[in-house]
Amino acid sequence: MEGIDLLWVAIATTLLFLMQAGFLCLETGMTRSKNNINVAIKNFCDFCVSALTFWFLGFGLMYGLSYQGWIGSDLFSLDFAKASPSLAVFFLFQVMLCATSVTILSGIVAERMKFGAYLFVAVIVSGFLYPIAGHWSWAGRLSEGSGWLAELGFVDFAGSTVVHSVGGWAGLALVLIVGPRLGRFDDGSGAHTITPSNMPTATLGALLLFIGWLGFNGGSTLVLDETVPSILINTVVGGCVGAISAGGLRYAVNQRLDVDQFINGALGGLVAVTANCFAVSTGSAALIGLVGGMIVVFFSQILETLKIDDAVGAIPVHLGAGIWGTLATGLYGDLETLGTGLSRLEQIGVQGLGVLVYGIWTFGVALLVFSAGNAVFRFRVTEEEEIAGLNIAELGIHHESELQASISTPVGTRP
Amino acid sequence: MEGIDLLWVAIATTLLFLMQAGFLCLETGMTRSKNNINVAIKNFCDFCVSALTFWFLGFGLMYGLSYQGWIGSDLFSLDFAKASPSLAVFFLFQVMLCATSVTILSGIVAERMKFGAYLFVAVIVSGFLYPIAGHWSWAGRLSEGSGWLAELGFVDFAGSTVVHSVGGWAGLALVLIVGPRLGRFDDGSGAHTITPSNMPTATLGALLLFIGWLGFNGGSTLVLDETVPSILINTVVGGCVGAISAGGLRYAVNQRLDVDQFINGALGGLVAVTANCFAVSTGSAALIGLVGGMIVVFFSQILETLKIDDAVGAIPVHLGAGIWGTLATGLYGDLETLGTGLSRLEQIGVQGLGVLVYGIWTFGVALLVFSAGNAVFRFRVTEEEEIAGLNIAELGIHHESELQASISTPVGTRP
Amino acid sequence: MEGIDLLWVAIATTLLFLMQAGFLCLETGMTRSKNNINVAIKNFCDFCVSALTFWFLGFGLMYGLSYQGWIGSDLFSLDFAKASPSLAVFFLFQVMLCATSVTILSGIVAERMKFGAYLFVAVIVSGFLYPIAGHWSWAGRLSEGSGWLAELGFVDFAGSTVVHSVGGWAGLALVLIVGPRLGRFDDGSGAHTITPSNMPTATLGALLLFIGWLGFNGGSTLVLDETVPSILINTVVGGCVGAISAGGLRYAVNQRLDVDQFINGALGGLVAVTANCFAVSTGSAALIGLVGGMIVVFFSQILETLKIDDAVGAIPVHLGAGIWGTLATGLYGDLETLGTGLSRLEQIGVQGLGVLVYGIWTFGVALLVFSAGNAVFRFRVTEEEEIAGLNIAELGIHHESELQASISTPVGTRP
Repeated sequence: MEGIDLLWVAIATTLLFLMQAGFLCLETGMTRSKNNINVAIKNFCDFCVSALTFWFLGFGLMYGLSYQGWIGSDLFSLDFAKASPSLAVFFLFQVMLCATSVTILSGIVAERMKFGAYLFVAVIVSGFLYPIAGHWSWAGRLSEGSGWLAELGFVDFAGSTVVHSVGGWAGLALVLIVGPRLGRFDDGSGAHTITPSNMPTATLGALLLFIGWLGFNGGSTLVLDETVPSILINTVVGGCVGAISAGGLRYAVNQRLDVDQFINGALGGLVAVTANCFAVSTGSAALIGLVGGMIVVFFSQILETLKIDDAVGAIPVHLGAGIWGTLATGLYGDLETLGTGLSRLEQIGVQGLGVLVYGIWTFGVALLVFSAGNAVFRFRVTEEEEIAGLNIAELGIHHESELQASISTPVGTRP
Repeated sequence: MEGIDLLWVAIATTLLFLMQAGFLCLETGMTRSKNNINVAIKNFCDFCVSALTFWFLGFGLMYGLSYQGWIGSDLFSLDFAKASPSLAVFFLFQVMLCATSVTILSGIVAERMKFGAYLFVAVIVSGFLYPIAGHWSWAGRLSEGSGWLAELGFVDFAGSTVVHSVGGWAGLALVLIVGPRLGRFDDGSGAHTITPSNMPTATLGALLLFIGWLGFNGGSTLVLDETVPSILINTVVGGCVGAISAGGLRYAVNQRLDVDQFINGALGGLVAVTANCFAVSTGSAALIGLVGGMIVVFFSQILETLKIDDAVGAIPVHLGAGIWGTLATGLYGDLETLGTGLSRLEQIGVQGLGVLVYGIWTFGVALLVFSAGNAVFRFRVTEEEEIAGLNIAELGIHHESELQASISTPVGTRP
Repeated sequence: MEGIDLLWVAIATTLLFLMQAGFLCLETGMTRSKNNINVAIKNFCDFCVSALTFWFLGFGLMYGLSYQGWIGSDLFSLDFAKASPSLAVFFLFQVMLCATSVTILSGIVAERMKFGAYLFVAVIVSGFLYPIAGHWSWAGRLSEGSGWLAELGFVDFAGSTVVHSVGGWAGLALVLIVGPRLGRFDDGSGAHTITPSNMPTATLGALLLFIGWLGFNGGSTLVLDETVPSILINTVVGGCVGAISAGGLRYAVNQRLDVDQFINGALGGLVAVTANCFAVSTGSAALIGLVGGMIVVFFSQILETLKIDDAVGAIPVHLGAGIWGTLATGLYGDLETLGTGLSRLEQIGVQGLGVLVYGIWTFGVALLVFSAGNAVFRFRVTEEEEIAGLNIAELGIHHESELQASISTPVGTRP
């Protein structure tokens, strides 16, 4: 690995890290102020916990010496002071990808899940679910062996499925176990919209995610080669079209300008091009973003109908558009660039197989493990705690604005 | 283009992208909470719309094969997967510059303009006004031909005029058509200050803009050469001096510490050095920033006297300091570095001509096109909508804190 | 200096700059809304003032031709347009380090100190205290001579002591002079917690600081060499472990999830690895972060017992963990990598000496100069102003939400 490649991956890593700030803003803005400290600190801590778990365990399972393409078997708890710079910078980038996948879950189940239980979930995803799933597609990026899905020709460049759908599937399992927030579907007359605390902050979050995505997709080459600029352009185009597509569709159908849909549409467009931005034309990226944005709108509708309460709309974005992006890789990817030797139809078939396999693995195992966890120590806070809000119930702190008698204006007698 | 240049421009692009987050924070913080969601989502969507419009149309008009130095004629809707990496990364950087120019308008007319009308304006600026204006100075940066103003010796390194003044002129035309906010000049006793919702967020925004400006000016070399560090230093110095100059002047005159002036002074200093930071000494950059900051203060006063209601003070910053920076290039720029072969006086003359030409073109055409647009579909929301606030009037959403009866604390009967 | 090194340092500079945004968010979030505009604008202005003071004076004292290893004597007010790119980019990086050290103070004494007095403090720290102290350890990084502490073998890679402890010591002196906020220790029954205005924003700030720290530590190599990736990993690991260590310790002792401790624990871990991240194993970085986080918790307790009112907990983080990190360099640093030729015990001794010397110099001189300044023009606002809040008392502005009668909803009669 040359210096310039190392530098590019290091920079992409910091951009990916910025996505954590984006998720924090997005999720605290879209939830209620009585829970927003809790949402923020969960975002902060899940990064810390995931990064360490991935170092201890996950990285080895994902990129260690492959056992038949199914699981890695070394590189656990590495001392990077003794490792090659290439390996170290590769790890840095991967640790941020892992943290991205994990943090997807936090938004979905915001406002009703215990802090400790959520950290348990973060350990499971970053230590097992994500890395094992990742091995099947990406093991060959570090070592000689190759994941069994990659071997079949499955292509997921930067992780529409490996990162986003895996987070989405695990989140779907979790939300089924945890259940909807009080008041969301309670009286049987359909869904109530729960008023967000700060949509400008959520919009800022979406913008930070968009910026960070340049590192997400651009860095996934792992070298600074001539494809990077086009990858970045496809990323920008996919996101921009997604915003307008989702926002526009909602406006066309409901005559409503819906901030959520603009934001989540952009993210949906970004997720959709993530798998294929290295192998499609700018025009195809626009088309993939267009459909990605629409899928966010439809998927949101479906979740509401099914009374699944995703607090920030992350399932439509990361799972919905992630599946689409993975299939779109087969539909629109330049076959030569994909380099799998498959025909168009075969490629589409393998992409579909990958979607299926990841769904079964992630959703299935997550449902099992999270159900077991929930049985041992209930994941959900009590109804009283939820009504009071998790800021006060879990963290014991109010914000100033919520206090009636303020300590800040004492009738002091300071000398 | 070597790898390292490509990398530098890609990084500068992400820094420019960060400026979008800066504008979002600045503008939502400086406006009222009843409008802040609307302000935020306009910022988000104008980026998406401008980027796509610039790809379809603007980039070709700006950098395509020149028709006599007046307008470009190819490179429309390019497929960058087939383009050279140099062209692609150049486009990326340019798309962000265009979006910067457009987003200047959004703050000026915040709190009273329709969402749809604003998107129309964004299309006009990114598709016609900005790229055609840009062609006259910068066409030669990509292709062999050269813009007619550049041919005469006009120099605007990173866009004090091409980006900032163009945005400012168009914004001035727009604000004249849209008119001042209700309550700003209503009772004839002078201007009322409209209380901002969140000045810490606005200050964060200014800081993000400052950071992004390192990419704005530093990346405009389009290569990583030995001038870049000095350009970055001039940028930092210009911004820092501008803040102190504007804040200090206001304090000297009014005995008031004025947050707006510190912030906008910094931005004024930054705008002022944008045209010349590659060709002036560190001391000159300080002087240019000093005057830039003062101009922001004076220009704000003038606008108030003329009852022009710029909601965030963007006209003084981008137009006022932009004109100054363009002239200062003639006054203080090292003639050899400018490389136009003109004498000091001639250079100053050409810079003045450029200021004039851009003013006539941008203000004139903007006034015409926006007036026509306004005649067809009124740009301004109704008085009732403005009083209610654009969050509820246009987007149909309140923030939680604005609701009396909260859906968030139902006396639930969940089992 | 090769192009790629120059690029890396320029990028690290922008990341360090982002830390200013992090401090702004952290400090405005942790303080009360009646003071938050004041906190934000102090953060913004102290950057501007420090950067310019460092250019005029500080850089020369720190890196100019050494007078016997004690003080630099040239390079004042340089014109960087004529300097080498290496020198210019070095200056850029250093100016951001200086601003980081200064801004540490602003949080400590937030909510009761005058704006003008704080700018005086910023000038003293950036113009004298920090650069002279820095010379003793880092003078050799630019010129041939070497600081006297470095000569003895003192090692502080990126500034656990030189940047963080210096800021912490000066802040400690300042807070002793300024005194605790009204209501914090008033009734003798121990400390009252003063309710923060916005902890999600504070958490965002911590995350931005974390991201910026990649530039802080990674850029301190001043070249892009093979140690950079491992330095970045040690930084991430130190911060992550610190968060969990401090938050976990507080939970173990008090059965409380304490957002402050997670945040400040992460920062403590980051400060602790700052001195040594280039010379320790990943495991050692984890251990150093672990202790760093715990020290934050203990140090906070001690300050409270001593009735020292640090508004954001910056002394435990920057001074406490800074001392620890400096000692840990002696304890765990690879002697060969440290390259001082000292034995383990000698190295530990010299590290301890450095801690002592910096404490005496910074705390001593700061106490002296700040006391003199305070005698001339009182640093603290009046009791009335403090109760009213510094937004209104110093800046004359309310936020909208604090106004009873709103100018924003006039019963207008606009035609």
